[in-house]
Amino acid sequence: MKFCSQCGAPVALRTPDGDTLRRHVCTSCGIIHYQNPTMIVGCIPEWEGRVLLCRRAIEPRRGLWTVPAGFMENGETTFNGARRETLEEANARVEIDSLYALYNIPHINQVYLLFRARLLDLDFSPGEETLEIRLLDETDIPWEHIAFATVRNTLTHYFEDRRRGTFPFHMGTIEPVKP
Amino acid sequence: MKFCSQCGAPVALRTPDGDTLRRHVCTSCGIIHYQNPTMIVGCIPEWEGRVLLCRRAIEPRRGLWTVPAGFMENGETTFNGARRETLEEANARVEIDSLYALYNIPHINQVYLLFRARLLDLDFSPGEETLEIRLLDETDIPWEHIAFATVRNTLTHYFEDRRRGTFPFHMGTIEPVKP
Repeated sequence: MKFCSQCGAPVALRTPDGDTLRRHVCTSCGIIHYQNPTMIVGCIPEWEGRVLLCRRAIEPRRGLWTVPAGFMENGETTFNGARRETLEEANARVEIDSLYALYNIPHINQVYLLFRARLLDLDFSPGEETLEIRLLDETDIPWEHIAFATVRNTLTHYFEDRRRGTFPFHMGTIEPVKP
Repeated sequence: MKFCSQCGAPVALRTPDGDTLRRHVCTSCGIIHYQNPTMIVGCIPEWEGRVLLCRRAIEPRRGLWTVPAGFMENGETTFNGARRETLEEANARVEIDSLYALYNIPHINQVYLLFRARLLDLDFSPGEETLEIRLLDETDIPWEHIAFATVRNTLTHYFEDRRRGTFPFHMGTIEPVKP
């Protein structure tokens, strides 16, 4: 951030009175521009034991597999965001069930919220950001080609939990990959 | 948002190619400025059956009672954010336990994440944003003077769950108050 989005003047990094962190503060109108983490909302759509995965048509991780998920929008709830992303990426309708996983990714200022979900019918097709969609049994999951650690961890827990017959909530933190 | 935070030129509301929503797009450099919901993270600090509440020294809802909670910062996890807010607002140290409640507040683009927590000692005092702190039994909770619906709902569930001896995760949506 270089300029104030309210008045167009340059911003400077300063610690406002009563604050403990440096913020982008406008040098003209004085407004403080806070920057906060964003939420990625998505779901694990299930149909008769199989899970719907999407192969990404966009960067990052183009060509790799993920569950339907994306940035939560203003004006929606977490679960409606997960439903919308599933419709956009897979043209698929789901009934959202319980919150299943929360992953913190502090080094990129993101929080993932993934819900369990029931696919309502088999009428699905790739959206604009998707190359290909498959309904996969556990044995067919392309573990070496999953786009994100959050999704790999969530799917691992999911199949373990299903064998145990219980789906407790999972929370974790993703650390940066060491070079 | 009126000006581009990258180059200072005016922004316009447009629907970018491949998008479905109108965004603030820079009329000069073309960058798209997405706006997304923010997270409020906090906890319910407990000590021998009593709960720590803070009376707010700042707007909104100055003078009313809340649990320690505030905007999640970039670079932190949800639970570390809850711990930091408790330190800032109450100078209190807690051990964060499980995620207890998620509230969607779509009309103000917020998501509340509240954790159960164990107060580690009785050395607490009001922070800059707090007028007064109390450790309260259920019978002493000032139900008519709670600052936010999220906090009132969470405390109601909390004491009900404690009587039942189990603390399941709660999720809800706060609607705008009708005039």
